[in-house]
Amino acid sequence: MNNYPVEYQKKLTIKKRLADYYREQSVKNGLVGMEKILAYTPVELQPRAMRRGLVVAQMGYGDILALIAQHKPFTIISGLNPSSQLHLGHKVLFDMLLELQQMGGELYIPLTDDESYVDDKVDKLLDGTRNAKEKIIPVLRKMGFDDEKTHYLIDTEQVELYKFAIELSRYVSMAELTHLFGAESLTNPGQVFYRGCVQLAEILMPQLPQNGGPRHTLIPVGIDQHPYILLARDVAKKVGMVPPSELVMRFFPSLEDPERKMSKSSPESALFLDDKPENIRRKIKRAFTGAVGSLEEHKKFGGVPESCSVFMLQQAFNPDDVEVNNLYDRYVNGDLLMGELKEKTSELIVDLLGTI
Amino acid sequence: MNNYPVEYQKKLTIKKRLADYYREQSVKNGLVGMEKILAYTPVELQPRAMRRGLVVAQMGYGDILALIAQHKPFTIISGLNPSSQLHLGHKVLFDMLLELQQMGGELYIPLTDDESYVDDKVDKLLDGTRNAKEKIIPVLRKMGFDDEKTHYLIDTEQVELYKFAIELSRYVSMAELTHLFGAESLTNPGQVFYRGCVQLAEILMPQLPQNGGPRHTLIPVGIDQHPYILLARDVAKKVGMVPPSELVMRFFPSLEDPERKMSKSSPESALFLDDKPENIRRKIKRAFTGAVGSLEEHKKFGGVPESCSVFMLQQAFNPDDVEVNNLYDRYVNGDLLMGELKEKTSELIVDLLGTI
Repeated sequence: MNNYPVEYQKKLTIKKRLADYYREQSVKNGLVGMEKILAYTPVELQPRAMRRGLVVAQMGYGDILALIAQHKPFTIISGLNPSSQLHLGHKVLFDMLLELQQMGGELYIPLTDDESYVDDKVDKLLDGTRNAKEKIIPVLRKMGFDDEKTHYLIDTEQVELYKFAIELSRYVSMAELTHLFGAESLTNPGQVFYRGCVQLAEILMPQLPQNGGPRHTLIPVGIDQHPYILLARDVAKKVGMVPPSELVMRFFPSLEDPERKMSKSSPESALFLDDKPENIRRKIKRAFTGAVGSLEEHKKFGGVPESCSVFMLQQAFNPDDVEVNNLYDRYVNGDLLMGELKEKTSELIVDLLGTI
Repeated sequence: MNNYPVEYQKKLTIKKRLADYYREQSVKNGLVGMEKILAYTPVELQPRAMRRGLVVAQMGYGDILALIAQHKPFTIISGLNPSSQLHLGHKVLFDMLLELQQMGGELYIPLTDDESYVDDKVDKLLDGTRNAKEKIIPVLRKMGFDDEKTHYLIDTEQVELYKFAIELSRYVSMAELTHLFGAESLTNPGQVFYRGCVQLAEILMPQLPQNGGPRHTLIPVGIDQHPYILLARDVAKKVGMVPPSELVMRFFPSLEDPERKMSKSSPESALFLDDKPENIRRKIKRAFTGAVGSLEEHKKFGGVPESCSVFMLQQAFNPDDVEVNNLYDRYVNGDLLMGELKEKTSELIVDLLGTI
């Protein structure tokens, strides 16, 4: 490695840090990597995000896979905080939800306007409720989900949710909650109730008798949401329900720094579902890549696609497995120049967003 | 006092401790005694409980009294935990609510089935909800309240209550809550949310725009509930509502010990609204009185009605002010024997409960 230019070594370091991060987090949280389970999952049962390495760990996914393989129904729960402006990181998730639904999943989408408010992400509670109704649900409805098997549930409009959250409250202690989430995220009683009861109720509600009783459920999350799943698994056992299974998705990278998340708080880092083509092209043009130094060096050593925010867009959204593999090989060999990659990727994303 | 028999001194001590307790609690909590405000309240505007000393302190009652005197409307909120079996302590409150309603009060009665559950007073949440519907509300409906001006609200059936509780959550900090209620009453996230948000929402809900906007409200409480009122007054100011006014009622005494509360957990201490006449007579016969030692001593020194659980029933429920004053005088002079008092009181209570 000593012969490599400094730039190349930097990009390799980013690649390594990203891999290490998910490995360490998985070990620390008792999660299992995807290698083994993917080895015995037929490729046609792997959603794209899974095939492309965007799902980094799991807990209990084997139960869901068994149902899928037997063409049996299962349930997916995927909450959405309606303070978010939807970006491509969300789209990766929605695409996976759609594929999983097509494999037999009934889909529950809690829109957590209460969470937006207790965490100060919106000024007024009603702003979250309105966002959910006017901005989020209309976009979700265009994603292709099966209307019959998709439930959009706004938290503050469901009296059943509050009732169930109160019911669950006796199964969670304040000591446990503080241990799991830290006192700094529990500064007002709304946060305590949301994290300690409401989120649990969202997760376990499909297993209530009136909704069909205990069943296998799957929840895709970011690694930072893992404590919720741990708590939900623990409480599920106490109330005679099935502990939910979990898929951990990678954070979708910022265009400016693959070690940070794509986020609405930094607009140049993100591609929003309602971005105009010229903005998409501009942001991708300026994006951080895995290229190393001069053109000459890049051709000689090749680049590092794992550290490239643009290549990640190909991984996530290019439907053609063969083409993505080709791009990868050319990237590593130094045959793929960043101008070409950015041009190609801009067209891919402009087309993709044009259809939403 | 040294000439008095031991028994007499004991009963005087009870009287003194009771008076001291409310005086000290009032001072400690910044409450005002009733003496001054009663001095300028026409007697026909004093509900019986107030006239008879069962209301021991207040905060902001002057505002309500001014409205009453001007025949203007005001609002009363009086929550009821539906884990309770209704007893005469509740009846004192209901009687006062009825009189206040007749003076212009619109009445909100939150039935706090969520509170029953988070505090482990019922096995299942639904038990609280059912108690409210099947046992409490039917009794309340017989109390004579004006149907048009009385709202029975079961907490877990109101989506508006949950929404409003979440809205209030940002105005209360966990630090404040722990300081007011103590960590020992905040052991699960349901208790935190109930005490920190839901109870506030019950209190302030009549002031929401859709319910008519800011207005003067009155809440009768036991002194142990004073922290709720303090918190509600504080939050009311922050959200542009009128801080509620408060009346503090004495704890209604146990039949066995005037320094303890009448409570369903000790059935011989309490007269329940559905007690049979023979049970009423038996419990009153065995009740603790202010009589002192032998008949001879009693006649010589007189008794202490303030330490007498039976006399308290006369104070609370005998509609005839003159007769109660007479009984008091005869009690103090030693002319009233306990047999007569108990007989008279049994008849009063049997008649009273026969009409519910």
